[in-house]
Amino acid sequence: MTSDDALARPADASPDAVADLGLLSPVRVASDVEAATGDRAFLQAMLDAEAALTRAQATLGDAPRGAADAVTAAAHADRFDVRDIAVRARRGGNPVIPLAADLTAALPADAAPYVHRGATSQDIMDTATMLVAARTLPLLAADLRRTADTLGRLAEAHRATPMPGRTLTQHAVPTTFGLKAAGWRHLVLDGLERLSAVRLPAQLGGAAGTLAAFETRAGTTAALGTPTGTPAGGPALLAAYARELGLAEPVLPWHTLRTPVADLGSALGFVCGALGKLAVDVLVLSRTEIGELAEGSGGDSSAMPHKSNPVRAALITSAARQAPALAAVLTSALTAEDERPAGAWHAEWQTLRALLRLAGGAARDAAELVDSLRVLSARMHDNLHVTGGLIVSERLAVELGALLGRQPARELLTRAAHRAAAERRSLAAVLAEEPALAGHLDRMSRLTDPTTYLGAAAALVDRALARKTGSEHRNHP
Amino acid sequence: MTSDDALARPADASPDAVADLGLLSPVRVASDVEAATGDRAFLQAMLDAEAALTRAQATLGDAPRGAADAVTAAAHADRFDVRDIAVRARRGGNPVIPLAADLTAALPADAAPYVHRGATSQDIMDTATMLVAARTLPLLAADLRRTADTLGRLAEAHRATPMPGRTLTQHAVPTTFGLKAAGWRHLVLDGLERLSAVRLPAQLGGAAGTLAAFETRAGTTAALGTPTGTPAGGPALLAAYARELGLAEPVLPWHTLRTPVADLGSALGFVCGALGKLAVDVLVLSRTEIGELAEGSGGDSSAMPHKSNPVRAALITSAARQAPALAAVLTSALTAEDERPAGAWHAEWQTLRALLRLAGGAARDAAELVDSLRVLSARMHDNLHVTGGLIVSERLAVELGALLGRQPARELLTRAAHRAAAERRSLAAVLAEEPALAGHLDRMSRLTDPTTYLGAAAALVDRALARKTGSEHRNHP
Amino acid sequence: MTSDDALARPADASPDAVADLGLLSPVRVASDVEAATGDRAFLQAMLDAEAALTRAQATLGDAPRGAADAVTAAAHADRFDVRDIAVRARRGGNPVIPLAADLTAALPADAAPYVHRGATSQDIMDTATMLVAARTLPLLAADLRRTADTLGRLAEAHRATPMPGRTLTQHAVPTTFGLKAAGWRHLVLDGLERLSAVRLPAQLGGAAGTLAAFETRAGTTAALGTPTGTPAGGPALLAAYARELGLAEPVLPWHTLRTPVADLGSALGFVCGALGKLAVDVLVLSRTEIGELAEGSGGDSSAMPHKSNPVRAALITSAARQAPALAAVLTSALTAEDERPAGAWHAEWQTLRALLRLAGGAARDAAELVDSLRVLSARMHDNLHVTGGLIVSERLAVELGALLGRQPARELLTRAAHRAAAERRSLAAVLAEEPALAGHLDRMSRLTDPTTYLGAAAALVDRALARKTGSEHRNHP
Amino acid sequence: MTSDDALARPADASPDAVADLGLLSPVRVASDVEAATGDRAFLQAMLDAEAALTRAQATLGDAPRGAADAVTAAAHADRFDVRDIAVRARRGGNPVIPLAADLTAALPADAAPYVHRGATSQDIMDTATMLVAARTLPLLAADLRRTADTLGRLAEAHRATPMPGRTLTQHAVPTTFGLKAAGWRHLVLDGLERLSAVRLPAQLGGAAGTLAAFETRAGTTAALGTPTGTPAGGPALLAAYARELGLAEPVLPWHTLRTPVADLGSALGFVCGALGKLAVDVLVLSRTEIGELAEGSGGDSSAMPHKSNPVRAALITSAARQAPALAAVLTSALTAEDERPAGAWHAEWQTLRALLRLAGGAARDAAELVDSLRVLSARMHDNLHVTGGLIVSERLAVELGALLGRQPARELLTRAAHRAAAERRSLAAVLAEEPALAGHLDRMSRLTDPTTYLGAAAALVDRALARKTGSEHRNHP
Repeated sequence: MTSDDALARPADASPDAVADLGLLSPVRVASDVEAATGDRAFLQAMLDAEAALTRAQATLGDAPRGAADAVTAAAHADRFDVRDIAVRARRGGNPVIPLAADLTAALPADAAPYVHRGATSQDIMDTATMLVAARTLPLLAADLRRTADTLGRLAEAHRATPMPGRTLTQHAVPTTFGLKAAGWRHLVLDGLERLSAVRLPAQLGGAAGTLAAFETRAGTTAALGTPTGTPAGGPALLAAYARELGLAEPVLPWHTLRTPVADLGSALGFVCGALGKLAVDVLVLSRTEIGELAEGSGGDSSAMPHKSNPVRAALITSAARQAPALAAVLTSALTAEDERPAGAWHAEWQTLRALLRLAGGAARDAAELVDSLRVLSARMHDNLHVTGGLIVSERLAVELGALLGRQPARELLTRAAHRAAAERRSLAAVLAEEPALAGHLDRMSRLTDPTTYLGAAAALVDRALARKTGSEHRNHP
Repeated sequence: MTSDDALARPADASPDAVADLGLLSPVRVASDVEAATGDRAFLQAMLDAEAALTRAQATLGDAPRGAADAVTAAAHADRFDVRDIAVRARRGGNPVIPLAADLTAALPADAAPYVHRGATSQDIMDTATMLVAARTLPLLAADLRRTADTLGRLAEAHRATPMPGRTLTQHAVPTTFGLKAAGWRHLVLDGLERLSAVRLPAQLGGAAGTLAAFETRAGTTAALGTPTGTPAGGPALLAAYARELGLAEPVLPWHTLRTPVADLGSALGFVCGALGKLAVDVLVLSRTEIGELAEGSGGDSSAMPHKSNPVRAALITSAARQAPALAAVLTSALTAEDERPAGAWHAEWQTLRALLRLAGGAARDAAELVDSLRVLSARMHDNLHVTGGLIVSERLAVELGALLGRQPARELLTRAAHRAAAERRSLAAVLAEEPALAGHLDRMSRLTDPTTYLGAAAALVDRALARKTGSEHRNHP
Repeated sequence: MTSDDALARPADASPDAVADLGLLSPVRVASDVEAATGDRAFLQAMLDAEAALTRAQATLGDAPRGAADAVTAAAHADRFDVRDIAVRARRGGNPVIPLAADLTAALPADAAPYVHRGATSQDIMDTATMLVAARTLPLLAADLRRTADTLGRLAEAHRATPMPGRTLTQHAVPTTFGLKAAGWRHLVLDGLERLSAVRLPAQLGGAAGTLAAFETRAGTTAALGTPTGTPAGGPALLAAYARELGLAEPVLPWHTLRTPVADLGSALGFVCGALGKLAVDVLVLSRTEIGELAEGSGGDSSAMPHKSNPVRAALITSAARQAPALAAVLTSALTAEDERPAGAWHAEWQTLRALLRLAGGAARDAAELVDSLRVLSARMHDNLHVTGGLIVSERLAVELGALLGRQPARELLTRAAHRAAAERRSLAAVLAEEPALAGHLDRMSRLTDPTTYLGAAAALVDRALARKTGSEHRNHP
Repeated sequence: MTSDDALARPADASPDAVADLGLLSPVRVASDVEAATGDRAFLQAMLDAEAALTRAQATLGDAPRGAADAVTAAAHADRFDVRDIAVRARRGGNPVIPLAADLTAALPADAAPYVHRGATSQDIMDTATMLVAARTLPLLAADLRRTADTLGRLAEAHRATPMPGRTLTQHAVPTTFGLKAAGWRHLVLDGLERLSAVRLPAQLGGAAGTLAAFETRAGTTAALGTPTGTPAGGPALLAAYARELGLAEPVLPWHTLRTPVADLGSALGFVCGALGKLAVDVLVLSRTEIGELAEGSGGDSSAMPHKSNPVRAALITSAARQAPALAAVLTSALTAEDERPAGAWHAEWQTLRALLRLAGGAARDAAELVDSLRVLSARMHDNLHVTGGLIVSERLAVELGALLGRQPARELLTRAAHRAAAERRSLAAVLAEEPALAGHLDRMSRLTDPTTYLGAAAALVDRALARKTGSEHRNHP
């Protein structure tokens, strides 16, 4: 089978020339998800879908068992030329058409007629996409669980490790690193939940989603007397097909009811955004002047030997910056006209793959990041004191308010805060000079100790850790 | 309280001059959701949050009951100047700061100290957002349920009404209008499910999410002996506060754990995309040349008296084109640094409101559209025949394949199809002239009748209708 | 004129209930752009477009001068009910239909027939949008120029003020604050250029963009002998109309050739992103631990008297996080079917207004921010030394490389860097103990002085400042 | 050089397993742009940037000519292992670090020290990106010019070929196919202009954009006396480097002044959106019931021999649905902190490549589509009459208005339109029965002939064609 002349391949369109091998996307490179979402993995999934269809037909007596065995035996991606199929996909707009032709050509004559029978390209393509997702999500989930587990240990170990709480970039009141880690974990668990909630159905509808070719075939085959078995309509085939694939059985063919793809997009976008939260916090806290966290395996700089860059965090952030826009493309693809659309569907494929890879890579990087994260609690302690006690002015406002009245206390505090900052003295010392507080230096020192103003941080960590990570990932079929 | 001089209001910044009253967004205008998401509704929700906080503190014995009553009595949006608060919000970056000041000023002296005690602006703002969502989603859900119910009736009535199935814009094989309507309904129900799954928690964390001011206050108040009651820490207050509001109690303060907002964004984006599917189908099917559907209350044209435009569908489409991008902004806001962020949070407010309004307006328009939809089954029937039988060539390929062999049948069909198109004759007539099919005119006529090739369409409708609409909307608290 | 019953206004849809007065978008509140883009401003622009059309027709002798005068006199937004028009816009899907009706009703009987003659709603709506843009962009540009001017002064004043250069959040090598300010200015000027390059054309095409009604009218009117004047075809009217409006004359009606709107979206998205760069730098540099910059009019915290939040920067960031997604909606709207589309056009209106407001607000806030920006060069100096000289390890690598060879120098440096960090000593001191550098303490001290390793920073500032701000904003008509 | 253990490559991460060879993106496959943007092309561009840097240094006497020759000779992508570099890029977060190491290792000892001297990874990466863009845009522009030329011929040939003008999916008034084609061409030319306006600068700044290492080097080298030549500072090197590359010389290093990338994103997004307009029109007009256009090389269906799908249009649409979101990611990347950012930059690479490929593929497909487009003017003629004259009701309203008064004419027309539709008669016939028009059947027939109501369509085509396509693409350097 050769390409259409009008759509001929130019001279330099060799696989080596065109390949994307990850050079521009280090966040995903060498993650488990990367290989699970390569062109070969998609091709294999399409072949698996074709083979499952023939097997399902055989189960219902609508195809010879031998044909199903032959298709299954032939359905190995290594035997097909991915690039050639990709090029020939241009003609009809999707790769299933040339793949089905090549698979047919690879079969013995008596099995060939039983390939792709009654199916439309989208049946195979969508099913393959769901298979790829079903194979990829557990890998992604494993990295998320690994991340959550490590964060759980960090949260527990540091449930009472004080550090500055920061709002609008400024020191606000103290918090604990454990609470921060517990929050990161909470988001990761939310991401895991959202991934698990995505239902991954097989796709089978035939040309316009009515299963008509399968219904006809059941009748025809029965009429001709071959092969044996009870003819069954499309819905029965749909069930058998989903069983063969280990995917959910859809209520309706979903050629233009794109909930599964939109849901995947939302869940993957969520995961990237959630990991992005962890990453931006690490970026902030590993700044040279802050230094409360450091990536254990920070990246080298090519020019500056002293630098240890928060590379994992930067790469996770790069995923968080790309994913929401890609998820939006998938949500937009819900708006798909007719029984099978002209463009909306085609826009999903590469977009969904990119999202899987970003989320998978970000999850792998997050697991690595937290595994090797260095928590520098001494720097947290030092930083708590850089404002000379101002970080607990909230407490002082409350305590002095009880003593002096709300408004006078507030005025006194504001005045003292400015003076402490201007004179680079501690707030306690300045306050103790206030006539209204004369003789309260001890109490002022105690009240301005940030490490004793942690609120319910530790209790909140305990609440958060009561939520369990869960075990194996499964999308309910 | 006056505005900062440096941030002075220009001369023409009157409410009338700046107001958005819906002139540029007809999709949302006059929907129930519009009023539920106006500035006044948000202001009321902020006031409700403030009042609930004082009441919760009173419940725990941490504020006088009289103060709680006074705050509750004062907390009516009509008594506050929305625009003035909006202008003064510029100074600190959010409207809660000036609102809390105005609310305090509106109270008797003994109640004033119990407003906003221990809270941070974000506690009130986020809680208000969740309240607005909790009040808005039932309105939105009601329109979606109304839409789904009507679609259910249409699907049942037209489960076997044949019409052309279209793929990549071309006639493919027949389907039924009932199956199409059942698919639309399925998406609407998916949207309802996704809305119901969004958890809407109260927000309370204090300055940096540790509940420290509430913990301190509990101690302080107890020490001062007033008022009576058992002092309780922040978590107890969090629970009491959520109860007062009828919102879910969060495990952790979620100032920078933005799952609720991201989830809302995804669910609302989904709803708009799902309704967009219905709308683009209506747009296609009401085209002048197709004419299978018509909006009963189509819009007038200003210049052309004969036109009846599918205006509801156009407006729903306008929402579906805006919503995914807005949802992406909310997913991006997951990536929020520190204990409270500088910008990510601020980017959520208007975006979420816009999404609620687009989804609410689209749902209202969808309900109107389907209520008045005219199904022109005679045109569906006529259109089924415009290809002279080619629309069932799939069936012929199967049937003739059984008779003549797959490849010869395919070649014969392709030849006949071209001839039928060129000579503008029916496929049955052309086929009957083929030597191989001599004498099968009757059978060919029967096989080329599109209305008898509906596959499992009716059975699929029944499957789909077995899924129930559900009753009242509720977000589990 | 009353609303359609089927589309009746619910009880609480009063203007006060539904209004957006800026409560959720402090970034835009009270900016000049806000009032220039309110519903009233859009309504006025629609009226201006209607009046310009009648005047243009009068100019060509195709309408009585008196009618043109009457329409012009009546075309004041204050005389119309914005909300009522917004509600009635639902029926036909756009506000021009009810507005044209109300304008007609407001005219004397002999002028009434000359309103909206031959126009389609989109002619008026698109022209109004361009008018609003033409009135808004100079306001936006003024704030950008003001920002650029201030930044130019800051760059000049601080062309040699040393501060740490930071990459991947870590100190890299020194830079100057002047170079940073010059970079911000460069981006602002890029934004100004992109705004100026947007061409803002009038819109006039009639029902399907052929100007047919105007062509006919010219003929008809001539045939009837009234009014006097040379009949002229649509293109002449298009030119006259554009002249009346001070907008560019388009080559073609652009109902579905949406370059002007897409260009506006891109330029406004660019402006927000460019100002976002300035804002995130301010956010980083005003962090408590860094403290190199401070907003002069930082926002108060409601709970913590000492905090001075970088509120302008946070609000600008909020705009930068929303704008690109909105611009994407406008780029998507290029893909608009037919002669006038069903949804793509309707999706533009609110989106473009939101973008104008975000960019206008961000520009205003940027001008305020830089006007009051406090540059704390002492902190910059202190921070340059926090790494004990490591910030100039690049220079040492070069200098020692020349002395010892590239690889030995690199190894020595890495060893010394780790030792300096571990022992909290200066790199110079550690280096001077290396046998290979024995006796070079002076030179090492000199080489590790960050303030003498500024490269071409000052020269680059001069290059950047050679680019001028430009004067008045104008979109070439 | 081996990978870090902690970042080890999993077992199945072979190039074949992970490669993206276009299977999921038929729109781009086998386009010239695809090969110009593969990983190998990017790797080559990085090598070209490295070689240009050493040559520029040699030109300024800061490196031996022999070293420059050696680097240039070694800089061939085929000699490097793309996948290995991609995997090792994970460590530092970008591929330049391992590439520079491999390039160094490939050189003779005396040339090795002159590779990557003074540069930072981003200097090379950004320059490579601009080189790739500079090599890709002419390919893209060639397809756009080819498209525009063909559209110009179509517009001229069909300047007066009448067809229905459609608004909100309904017949409005007639237009011509030439005007439609002229509009498509206009958008394509707008796209070409926007691409040409993008300035593609070289990048060179060193570690933090001050060119410090180059300044030092100039001094150092001079001090050491080797090699000969006038030492020159960073700006001189920047100029020489840009000259070597044929790229524009930037005013400032633009590590975090991302105008070039944002501009590229906007221009490419525009191109995809503009081609999307052409594509959706083709999709509409090739619908089975409309049939006014057909793709000459429409795609086969796997199941239905009669179908000729508008595959080019569908694939172009798929690009138009993805591109705006990707462009938004690039606009967002303007908001990049510090002297070099942690994530914003990394998010650009894959995104920009994807955009180039989508635009390049869409342009290639557009050229193919219009080359083979079949214009079925007979169907256009037939469709003009399907409303029985209602398509010219606008003209009738004008003409009858002149005769009977505006309002009576409108009422008569509305009545007649409903009657004509209900009785399936022509509007002319119904009108002629109106007493007020008694005896005007001839005139009514003439007035209801759609082919004589084309307005200024032909004149507008001439205006549009006066705009020239332009010749060679060049981005001004």
